[in-house]
Amino acid sequence: MKRIYNFSAGPSVLPEEVLQQAGAEIMDCNNSGMSVMEMSHRSKVFDDIIKNTEALFRKVLGVPDNYKVLFIPGGATMQFAMVPMNLLSGNGIADYILSGHFSTKAYEEACLFGKTINIAGSSKNDNFSHIPQQDELNITPGADYVHICQNNTVYGSLWNYTPDTGNVPLVADMSSCILSEPCDVSRYALIYAGVQKNIAPAGVAVVFIRDDLLRDPIPGTPVMLNYKVQAKNDSMYNTPPCWPIYISMLVLEWIEKLGGLTEMKRRNKEKASILYDYLDSTGFYQTAVKPEHRSMMNVTFTTGNADLDARFANEAEARDMTNLKGYRTLGGMRASIYNAMPKAGVEALVAFMKEFERKNG
Amino acid sequence: MKRIYNFSAGPSVLPEEVLQQAGAEIMDCNNSGMSVMEMSHRSKVFDDIIKNTEALFRKVLGVPDNYKVLFIPGGATMQFAMVPMNLLSGNGIADYILSGHFSTKAYEEACLFGKTINIAGSSKNDNFSHIPQQDELNITPGADYVHICQNNTVYGSLWNYTPDTGNVPLVADMSSCILSEPCDVSRYALIYAGVQKNIAPAGVAVVFIRDDLLRDPIPGTPVMLNYKVQAKNDSMYNTPPCWPIYISMLVLEWIEKLGGLTEMKRRNKEKASILYDYLDSTGFYQTAVKPEHRSMMNVTFTTGNADLDARFANEAEARDMTNLKGYRTLGGMRASIYNAMPKAGVEALVAFMKEFERKNG
Repeated sequence: MKRIYNFSAGPSVLPEEVLQQAGAEIMDCNNSGMSVMEMSHRSKVFDDIIKNTEALFRKVLGVPDNYKVLFIPGGATMQFAMVPMNLLSGNGIADYILSGHFSTKAYEEACLFGKTINIAGSSKNDNFSHIPQQDELNITPGADYVHICQNNTVYGSLWNYTPDTGNVPLVADMSSCILSEPCDVSRYALIYAGVQKNIAPAGVAVVFIRDDLLRDPIPGTPVMLNYKVQAKNDSMYNTPPCWPIYISMLVLEWIEKLGGLTEMKRRNKEKASILYDYLDSTGFYQTAVKPEHRSMMNVTFTTGNADLDARFANEAEARDMTNLKGYRTLGGMRASIYNAMPKAGVEALVAFMKEFERKNG
Repeated sequence: MKRIYNFSAGPSVLPEEVLQQAGAEIMDCNNSGMSVMEMSHRSKVFDDIIKNTEALFRKVLGVPDNYKVLFIPGGATMQFAMVPMNLLSGNGIADYILSGHFSTKAYEEACLFGKTINIAGSSKNDNFSHIPQQDELNITPGADYVHICQNNTVYGSLWNYTPDTGNVPLVADMSSCILSEPCDVSRYALIYAGVQKNIAPAGVAVVFIRDDLLRDPIPGTPVMLNYKVQAKNDSMYNTPPCWPIYISMLVLEWIEKLGGLTEMKRRNKEKASILYDYLDSTGFYQTAVKPEHRSMMNVTFTTGNADLDARFANEAEARDMTNLKGYRTLGGMRASIYNAMPKAGVEALVAFMKEFERKNG
């Protein structure tokens, strides 16, 4: 069996222990005589799985009791629609803060629903190389919500503070940083995350929503995209994506066993520092993001030469380090080093970066 | 390792060979050094998987070239919304034929979008024990489409003919009969199926849509629910549910190796006959569905006594035959005997039914 270092931004590397357990149980989970892929979502065995997954999210992430935990088919892009469809039934006004690629996509999606969608802050002018700070924000009083993307997968930046939005509920896309460090969930009214970056295989988004936001959606909202319906039915209005929910449970158990989110943060900080310390020590590679706003999950860099960047990714691939090419619209390189990426993978990458610099510098 | 006979209506039994292969490749698929759960959806390995899955659907089911094959997150319930959102941008009129539980749910969902939704036929009056025949239908000339549910999972009936809808495009939910027998796709303008009954684990729906139906959807349609966008992006507008697509490929390879849909039909007919022949030979169990309209996939029956029915399901469970309880709103028993249910499972069930009759008859 071959295993490589997979730096993909998503879907991404999963813990080997989790894959081993999933493999061991693939024909018979928990002495049921069935795979999790085969069992009725209303069976006792799966009911235990989904309840346990929710309990682990609550425990590991510290989700307060007045929040529902939902599992919704699709990923964050489906949430780009669900958030406005469900929350714009108040005053019909929302504020979006643009700090990268996916926050911009979320803004564009919200504009489809015929309401007032404001840009309340943006770092587009400096090509998203910093996170808009509190004094750059222009929150609309009475808005139904403010939307941010906490970690910018494409540009490699992370919000270094939680914005103060006054009475306006704060909604955050945490797809690429969820479970990477402790998080005060109570500062947010709604958090969502596609699971395929730091939790499980693609196919489901996890949503933490404060009870008071479970209101009737705007007309023309499909029942599957209605948070209130999903909450009332414990995410089982119809068959949920059972398999990625099951893998989420295994990953949460793995995180808990290792020491929870405090330990995840220690590991992630250590791994990211290995990369950033080297990047800061050389002029051969550059990274555009302001140091205080750097992501621990997605590290972007470039040689400044597109041909050399392409060679870098290809030569790394030949050494079993894959998916180091930057996002297709941005270029350069990107190393995604989520929870499941071992420190040895980052060390191997930096060793290769040094060698590549020696040969081409 | 324990394996049981799983008669669940969905998610449901998968071929053991498929589970074995998925297990063998769970940490390293196709010498990539990655699980399919971990790999970028834009990687070469996954690109081969999704293209191969599409090619196999086209070959095994005979999907014509002027149809797109789409993989959309969620199941049939998401399609209940997508069909009207995308197709009602014509005259804003649709006809629904009610032949059971899920066709009724599809009708109710279509009514959310503020257009004219007609009931063009229904067997509700006889508790859905027959399929509305051609002379019972009242198709609206100029309607954007007519919707049917080909196989009624809850009631256990199957359309015994393809309705003539004139110039009005025919849309069919085939979730619980897809790949169970040959199908003339060209008779339908759009076919959809949640994969979790006869194809793969829950989390994706496959959609076959004729090119001319790829029109602009009604305002307020999320981009993820836009067939035209999904078609233009080969189902990769964002990350698709990679794992159930991969399992679909393995199941299609399994079907092809066994002899394709002709052989599936032979096997399914044989299995269903074992059950129906016994049901027709005894007065102890009754089945409500008109003989010519019986499903080969979902066989419903009852003793006529709710307590006895409950005991039946419990005693079967104790003998490792699971999920024989009828749908929660209907009661009675239901044996779902999809492609992957071996003949031995049906024989074991009938042996138990006979024994139960001897003891309680």
